[in-house]
Amino acid sequence: MSEVKAYGAQASDANLKELNIERRQITADDVQIEIEYCGVCHSDIHQVRNDWKNSKYPVVPGHEIIGRVTQVGKNVSNFKEGDLVGVGCMVDSCQECDSCKEDLEQFCEKGATLTYNSKDKHLGGHTFGGYSEQIVVDKEFVLSIPENIDAKATAPLLCAGITTYSPLRHWNVKKGDKVGVIGLGGLGHMGVKFASALGAHVVMITTSPSKSEDAKKLGADEVLVSKNEEDMKKQAGSFDFLLNTVPVGHDMNPYIALLKRDATMVLVGAIEPLDPVHGGGLIGGRKRIAGSVIGGIKETQEMLDFCGENNIVSDIEMIDIHNINEAFDRVVKSDVKYRFVIDMKSLKNKN
Amino acid sequence: MSEVKAYGAQASDANLKELNIERRQITADDVQIEIEYCGVCHSDIHQVRNDWKNSKYPVVPGHEIIGRVTQVGKNVSNFKEGDLVGVGCMVDSCQECDSCKEDLEQFCEKGATLTYNSKDKHLGGHTFGGYSEQIVVDKEFVLSIPENIDAKATAPLLCAGITTYSPLRHWNVKKGDKVGVIGLGGLGHMGVKFASALGAHVVMITTSPSKSEDAKKLGADEVLVSKNEEDMKKQAGSFDFLLNTVPVGHDMNPYIALLKRDATMVLVGAIEPLDPVHGGGLIGGRKRIAGSVIGGIKETQEMLDFCGENNIVSDIEMIDIHNINEAFDRVVKSDVKYRFVIDMKSLKNKN
Repeated sequence: MSEVKAYGAQASDANLKELNIERRQITADDVQIEIEYCGVCHSDIHQVRNDWKNSKYPVVPGHEIIGRVTQVGKNVSNFKEGDLVGVGCMVDSCQECDSCKEDLEQFCEKGATLTYNSKDKHLGGHTFGGYSEQIVVDKEFVLSIPENIDAKATAPLLCAGITTYSPLRHWNVKKGDKVGVIGLGGLGHMGVKFASALGAHVVMITTSPSKSEDAKKLGADEVLVSKNEEDMKKQAGSFDFLLNTVPVGHDMNPYIALLKRDATMVLVGAIEPLDPVHGGGLIGGRKRIAGSVIGGIKETQEMLDFCGENNIVSDIEMIDIHNINEAFDRVVKSDVKYRFVIDMKSLKNKN
Repeated sequence: MSEVKAYGAQASDANLKELNIERRQITADDVQIEIEYCGVCHSDIHQVRNDWKNSKYPVVPGHEIIGRVTQVGKNVSNFKEGDLVGVGCMVDSCQECDSCKEDLEQFCEKGATLTYNSKDKHLGGHTFGGYSEQIVVDKEFVLSIPENIDAKATAPLLCAGITTYSPLRHWNVKKGDKVGVIGLGGLGHMGVKFASALGAHVVMITTSPSKSEDAKKLGADEVLVSKNEEDMKKQAGSFDFLLNTVPVGHDMNPYIALLKRDATMVLVGAIEPLDPVHGGGLIGGRKRIAGSVIGGIKETQEMLDFCGENNIVSDIEMIDIHNINEAFDRVVKSDVKYRFVIDMKSLKNKN
């Protein structure tokens, strides 16, 4: 346990007592959830390690939460004890601003309350995430999980899933479109699955030829190795949409060259300074670069229902909470296919 | 004359003879134009000075051409001798590809024939522009100039005008939108006039407080000095659209912060590597950066008609061709309000 505590914490009852952290009590509008599974997102690591210089300790990360309802407040009518539910990156927002009214809580003008490391309206202090036994969440931020798909493999849908589904839908990717997914990791592998399910001709664009076979299994129609200049040239100006999941700044000019006139490349990974883009590459085809972040609650539910209907889940590797530090290190090295999910029962085991 | 010849040429008949350049003869589909005025675009200077390393000498620049029809080919029915006409940045395109069929000849998939320094389909060699006594142009690339506005001040509409009008229209700027025009030069001053005529609330965004008075005369409702961090902060997240006319790479992050969620900043000036953009600034509001270049012939005619109806012309300073080198130097120093136009009669004078 000492290593974990060095940068973060998981919230077993014993831990909480030791850290003098109070559990949030359920209110009339809340749903109490016993957490069964929690996905491991790269941003968990950034927060635990304070890479973004805004972490508040103790950090209890986790925003890909799957569990069963154990109790509901008296105003809650859409969930009942025993329901399989999920909680993603947000647990609250102002619910009054234009963005919230348009079901885009991720852009709440007062700032959405993130699932962890965000100001807690109820208890003060900051919120604690899903590496925990339970969580209490406002009913408007609880999602219904289809029972017909593998519950543990739905966890990553709450972040990696909606992060890739939302831009594909917002930019209206449709049957027959040629869509490139750049980068095959947690986000990229969901991007390929969704774009394929939407009927697009999906090209996995990667620096690693070794990923070809996997990409095709996930649903890619083609694999384009970005280091192969000849192949990149052949596909120049042919893409209707590019989903760029690369988590760090990188040379985007070769990708911009792949776009058709008026087409867009959406960034969902890199929240840091990007390498210089050549203005001529955008101007010469009225091309666009945009950003996108998760999705609103309504769209997240739509995505989950879409996954139920199309039998889409994440490819996962299950771990116990005791292996979290090793898992973090492996995520940083991109050594996971394609998402770790913690079995939260392991939190109750002796460690 | 020696200085001009050092990097370019103007095409008087005497010059042409000396340089052994043949004039293009009129075909059945062509319009012959006696040039009266030609605007001086910054790209004329780039080409003449070979800044882009693709100039072909002798360069006869000029793509903001106004003149009178002197002769038409037998297939030409929409123009007749004496008509006031214009020629902009293109004189031909394949007229068969998807872009051409969509009236977007500037994105012709085979490459539009630019007015100068572009491969000449008729004579071989390269095309020669408007710093000349006359020009012969395919009828599809000749524009009709409204007679009710000052002819010499319409010249810059053919490049600076359409470059700013096209993105404002394409991104559907409308009455009540809050539009920022970044940079007050040849392009920016037209951007302010058009955005204002379209009914937008126009904010001139400039580094120079000294430009405030001028910006307001041109139609800006407000001036925002981008160096004033406090003022920039106050206007964060409030713009529906930004037209960025800055001709060189620059820090765009403060401007991205000005955009509303889902809003776009369009670049029309900088065709060179841009400074690094922070991915978080785009992702945090699903914001967009795009490029745009001139406009198609149909849209250019629409813009000219709009100018006729709304009494819009460029603010110009007239020069003789003999002062062109001085004018070039002044353009480079941004010492012009806001566009030089050459009186082409001066080409016939002794020099």
